[in-house]
Amino acid sequence: MVEKRTPIPIGEAVKKVMEFARKGETELISIDDSHGRFLAEDIKATHDVPHFDRSPYDGFAIRANDTKEASPTNPVELEVIDHIGAGMVSSKTVGPFQAVRIMTGAQMPNGSDAVVMLELAKEANKDGKKFISIKRPFKKGDNVSFRGEDAIEGQVLIKKGTKINPGIQAVLATFGYSKVPVAKKPVIGVFATGTELLEVDEPLKPGKIRNSNAHMIAAQIDRAGAEVRYLGKLHDDFETCFEAVRKAINEVDLLITTGGVSVGDYDYLPAIYEKLGAERLFNKVAMRPGSVTTVAQFGRKLLFGLSGNPSACYVGFELFARPIIKTMLFSEKPHLRKEKAILAADFPKANPFTRFVRSTLTIRDGKLVVSPSGLDKSNIVTSLATANSLTILPGGTRGYQRGTEVDVLMLEDETGSEWPW
Amino acid sequence: MVEKRTPIPIGEAVKKVMEFARKGETELISIDDSHGRFLAEDIKATHDVPHFDRSPYDGFAIRANDTKEASPTNPVELEVIDHIGAGMVSSKTVGPFQAVRIMTGAQMPNGSDAVVMLELAKEANKDGKKFISIKRPFKKGDNVSFRGEDAIEGQVLIKKGTKINPGIQAVLATFGYSKVPVAKKPVIGVFATGTELLEVDEPLKPGKIRNSNAHMIAAQIDRAGAEVRYLGKLHDDFETCFEAVRKAINEVDLLITTGGVSVGDYDYLPAIYEKLGAERLFNKVAMRPGSVTTVAQFGRKLLFGLSGNPSACYVGFELFARPIIKTMLFSEKPHLRKEKAILAADFPKANPFTRFVRSTLTIRDGKLVVSPSGLDKSNIVTSLATANSLTILPGGTRGYQRGTEVDVLMLEDETGSEWPW
Repeated sequence: MVEKRTPIPIGEAVKKVMEFARKGETELISIDDSHGRFLAEDIKATHDVPHFDRSPYDGFAIRANDTKEASPTNPVELEVIDHIGAGMVSSKTVGPFQAVRIMTGAQMPNGSDAVVMLELAKEANKDGKKFISIKRPFKKGDNVSFRGEDAIEGQVLIKKGTKINPGIQAVLATFGYSKVPVAKKPVIGVFATGTELLEVDEPLKPGKIRNSNAHMIAAQIDRAGAEVRYLGKLHDDFETCFEAVRKAINEVDLLITTGGVSVGDYDYLPAIYEKLGAERLFNKVAMRPGSVTTVAQFGRKLLFGLSGNPSACYVGFELFARPIIKTMLFSEKPHLRKEKAILAADFPKANPFTRFVRSTLTIRDGKLVVSPSGLDKSNIVTSLATANSLTILPGGTRGYQRGTEVDVLMLEDETGSEWPW
Repeated sequence: MVEKRTPIPIGEAVKKVMEFARKGETELISIDDSHGRFLAEDIKATHDVPHFDRSPYDGFAIRANDTKEASPTNPVELEVIDHIGAGMVSSKTVGPFQAVRIMTGAQMPNGSDAVVMLELAKEANKDGKKFISIKRPFKKGDNVSFRGEDAIEGQVLIKKGTKINPGIQAVLATFGYSKVPVAKKPVIGVFATGTELLEVDEPLKPGKIRNSNAHMIAAQIDRAGAEVRYLGKLHDDFETCFEAVRKAINEVDLLITTGGVSVGDYDYLPAIYEKLGAERLFNKVAMRPGSVTTVAQFGRKLLFGLSGNPSACYVGFELFARPIIKTMLFSEKPHLRKEKAILAADFPKANPFTRFVRSTLTIRDGKLVVSPSGLDKSNIVTSLATANSLTILPGGTRGYQRGTEVDVLMLEDETGSEWPW
C-alpha cells in the first residue's frame, strides 16, 4: 500500500519548524579565534574613541589664535618647545606663539587646539632654538580628532548575531575584548541512510553510488556556522536504525538524516520517528525538489529527515535546518536572504509545484540577474557546484520567460531575511 | 626635512605589485577538511554520472511498449517478477508484460526502458503472484535517469582556483576525491609597529591606544584564505626592527607591517627596506586613505608597509596584498570584485584624490545601492565594522550627489575581478 501524504505549503512548514527555534548558548573565546564566529552579545564601546583629543597627522600642535594674522606675506613664527611621538604625552603646556612637534595619533598637549601638518610648516633653527613659520591661519579644532568623535562610552556598536568580520575584529581589539562572547557552535548530527551508498574512497560497484550527501550536508552545516558530527551510514535495517537514532539524539542539538523518508520499502525514518514517540510536524511539503522532507520533534529537539536526492537534500537543509541553526547563533534574520532578480534564461518546464531552481545569481550594470545553474533534475549533482542561489518559481504555471522578475534566495550571504515566505 | 614623495596612480601601483604575483603550492587534504579551501587543480568527472541507467523514483521498471494501449477504461496488467532496492541489481530480465519493483536510485533491470511511479500503479495479488495495472501509456525513457546524463567521464566540472562550497563537496564525493588537491595556504607574517600600541588585554593609558590593526589584518588575511603568522609588536627602535624584519622574511610568503611608513620621526620602515637592500616599488599612492602605503620586494618576496591608521591599513591590504594572496590560491580573478551601484547618500566632501569610502552595499528592488558606512576619517574604526564594500570616488571633484552611479569594490565576495582599475 502506498501511504497517502498531504503536502503543506512551504511557509507553513517553515513556521512549524520555527516554533521549535531557540537561542543558543554563549561561550567566551580568545579574540585570536573569533573571526567568522557570531556575536552572542551586543558589543559596546568600553570607553570614548578617541579617548583623548589627538592628532590625525604628523605636524605641530599649536594655538589657532596665534595664526590669525598669518599669510604668505606675513608668516607667523612659533617656537617648538617639545617633541612627542605617538604614545607619548607632553608635560609642557603650549603658550602664546609656541608649538609642539607631534606624531600621528599622539595626544594633543595642554594649551593646543589645532594641528599644522608637517608640509605646511617651515622649520628653522635660531640661537639653538627651533622655530616653525606658518603662512595661513588655522581655526580652533583644525586637524584634531576629538575625544568621543568615533564612539561614546556605552554606545552599542555591533548587534549580537552579527558575524565577526575584520572591521569588527578591529573594534573588539580597540575596546579591549581580549575574550569575545560568541555563540557556541550548535552540534548537528548527520546520518546517511541507504545500502546503495559507498564511501568516497571505495571503488564504484554496479548499482551503487558514493555517499555525496553526507559531505555536502557537512559543508552546509559548516557554512551555516555550526559544528558537524558525522555519525556514519545507516544500513537499511529498522532496528539498527532505530537504536542509532535514539542514541544520537541525546548527543546533538539537532539530528539530520539523509534518505529514507520517501514511501519506498526501505524508507524507515517515518516509522523510526513513530516508535521513538516523536511528534511529526510534516512529511510532505508542496515544493520541488524536497517534497518528501520530513521533520519531527522529540523533547523539543528537531529531527530532520531530508531526501536522499542530493538537490532535494540541499534545498531541504537550507529552507528548514539553516534557520534553526542561525537562530541558535543569535541571528534576528535566520532565513536565507530573499531578493528580486531578472531571469536571464527561459524556464520552459511546467510548474505544478513551487520550485527552487539551483541558480547562478550575478550582477549586470548594477542589477541582479539569475539563470539556472545546470539541469534541474533533483539527482543532478554538478549543478549544485555552481549554484549560489535558489530561484523561487511559484507553482501553477506553464513555465517562465526570460526577463521576468523573480524572487531569489541567496546561499552565500550572511545578511539573511526575517521571514521570506 | 620632510621627504618629498611622488604619488603614483592606483592602477600603476597595483600593476607594480602584481609583477611579483606567483601561483602557490598544492597540497592533498582529506575531503573532510576541504570545505572553504581553494582548488589547486581542475576537477574532472572520473566516471559517467549516473554510471548506470537508473530510476529517479520509487516505482516499477517496465517495457514502455507494453503500455501502448493502456487507458483508464483499458488498464494494462503487468506481472511483478522482482523487487530491488537502491544499491541492488536485479538478475532478471523484464520480458513482455512484466515489471520489476524498483526503488529511487536503483539500476534499471535488463529489458526495461521506463519507470511507472508508485502512485500510478495499482497493485494486486492473484494466484500468489503480484501484478500491477496501469491506466496510461508510457514512452521509452520515461522516468529514467540515463547514464552520463549528469556528467561524462573526463569532463572538467570545476575550475581550479574555485572556493570549495557544499555543492563542490558533493561533486568531490561523487567522483571519489577522498583526498582533494587544494592550494596550500600562503603564510603571511604580520608586524605591528608603534610604541603607542597596547595589547588588547592591557588597560588604557594616557596617549596610548590598543593594537587593533594586527587583529584586523589577521582577519583580513583569514578572509582572503591565507594563514596568519603574527610576529608581534615592533618598538620604535631601528636596529630591533631591522633584525626582526630580516629574520621574518625567510619564514613567510609575504610580510606585512602596519605603521611606520609615514614621514614621521619614528617611521623606520623605509630605512629598513633600504638597509635590507630591498627594491622599493612605491612609497606613495594617489589615493585616500592609504596614500603612504609602501611596497618593496626582496628576492621577489613582497614587503607591505601599510599605514598605521586602521582604515588606511584596511584599504591598503585589500587593494595590494589580497590579489597577491588570491593568486597564490590559484584565482584567475584575484582582485576585489568591482560592480556598479547607485549612491544612496550625498558625499559632499571635496575629493582631490581618488577616495575609497568604507560603505554598506545593499540591494533594493534588484538594484545595488551603496552608502558610506559611517564617518570617513581614516582613524575611524567603527565604520569598518559595518563596511562590506569600498565605494570608489574618483578624485578631482567637489563631492558626489545621491543618485550618482559609482563603482564599488565588494569585500565579502569570492568572485573577484580580473583587473578592476
